[in-house]
Amino acid sequence: MHYGIVIFPSKPVQDEINAYRKRYDPHYTLIPPHLTLKEAFDTDDAKITELITELKYIANETKPFDLTVNKVSTFAPVTNTIYLKVEPVQPLYDLAEKMQSGKFPDNRTYSFVPHITMAQDLSQDEYSDVYGSLSMKDIQLTDKIDRFHLVYQLDNGIWNVHESFIFGKEFV
Amino acid sequence: MHYGIVIFPSKPVQDEINAYRKRYDPHYTLIPPHLTLKEAFDTDDAKITELITELKYIANETKPFDLTVNKVSTFAPVTNTIYLKVEPVQPLYDLAEKMQSGKFPDNRTYSFVPHITMAQDLSQDEYSDVYGSLSMKDIQLTDKIDRFHLVYQLDNGIWNVHESFIFGKEFV
Repeated sequence: MHYGIVIFPSKPVQDEINAYRKRYDPHYTLIPPHLTLKEAFDTDDAKITELITELKYIANETKPFDLTVNKVSTFAPVTNTIYLKVEPVQPLYDLAEKMQSGKFPDNRTYSFVPHITMAQDLSQDEYSDVYGSLSMKDIQLTDKIDRFHLVYQLDNGIWNVHESFIFGKEFV
Repeated sequence: MHYGIVIFPSKPVQDEINAYRKRYDPHYTLIPPHLTLKEAFDTDDAKITELITELKYIANETKPFDLTVNKVSTFAPVTNTIYLKVEPVQPLYDLAEKMQSGKFPDNRTYSFVPHITMAQDLSQDEYSDVYGSLSMKDIQLTDKIDRFHLVYQLDNGIWNVHESFIFGKEFV
């Protein structure tokens, strides 16, 4: 199965980001607004059971932390994805790092940049317009993060949640 | 916030049911195929924290069980929803009952009928055609259930998962 590991911000933050995604992100109906800790990877039932135990240990080692957004940025020219830049706090790097080592497959393609996607797969003209308009907006978001989610992709492209991992609250 | 409690069957079962929902269920992109244990209810952050503790106790009291589907049925004439009838095993009734008593708001509108919706909000003509066609299909599904999910609805109508509750594995 095709899995990923993400942080969903709180509902008010998701609603605010969705107002942009609705117009600019073709993945809008496939997954709610999220910060990807580990990009999609394929694994089987036996291996995912093993990784779930690891994820519980990781969650128990993590303390709730603040997520802060105050800037729109872009991955251009690599891709024309436009995103909310998430303030690079240590717990995010620790989480992402732990999910690439030990029993986890290392599936990094780029170095970890904490972000929440607002727009992607735009034509070059659209991209320029949308980035011009979004980068002038004063978007300030803060949120308390106390969990991450293991998600899997259905055949229709929609992601569902297999399991939540609450910091300091997992039974191993 | 607007919450609900559901069971998601395994990915292969969701994929099979989605093949029907894609054509007949306007909620297809709002939530993956699911069995509703507790209909949508509204509550605040303090109350949901209390209910989450209750849900952990309930999950710990529950043993994994088989979910079996072998019949298409309908709620007509009450509504023209067409659904997969889920074999009425005791654990499903116990779960649904516990989520209506004690600290939980009792928000039953009908008695609990374990089902997975395939089609809804059809016009009367569509309904007759679709029910005629679906009720002749030999749909046999079995699945092992070991968890339920607390879900919440975003402003755009899409449901996201707040937390998973694994039978016998919750830390309270």
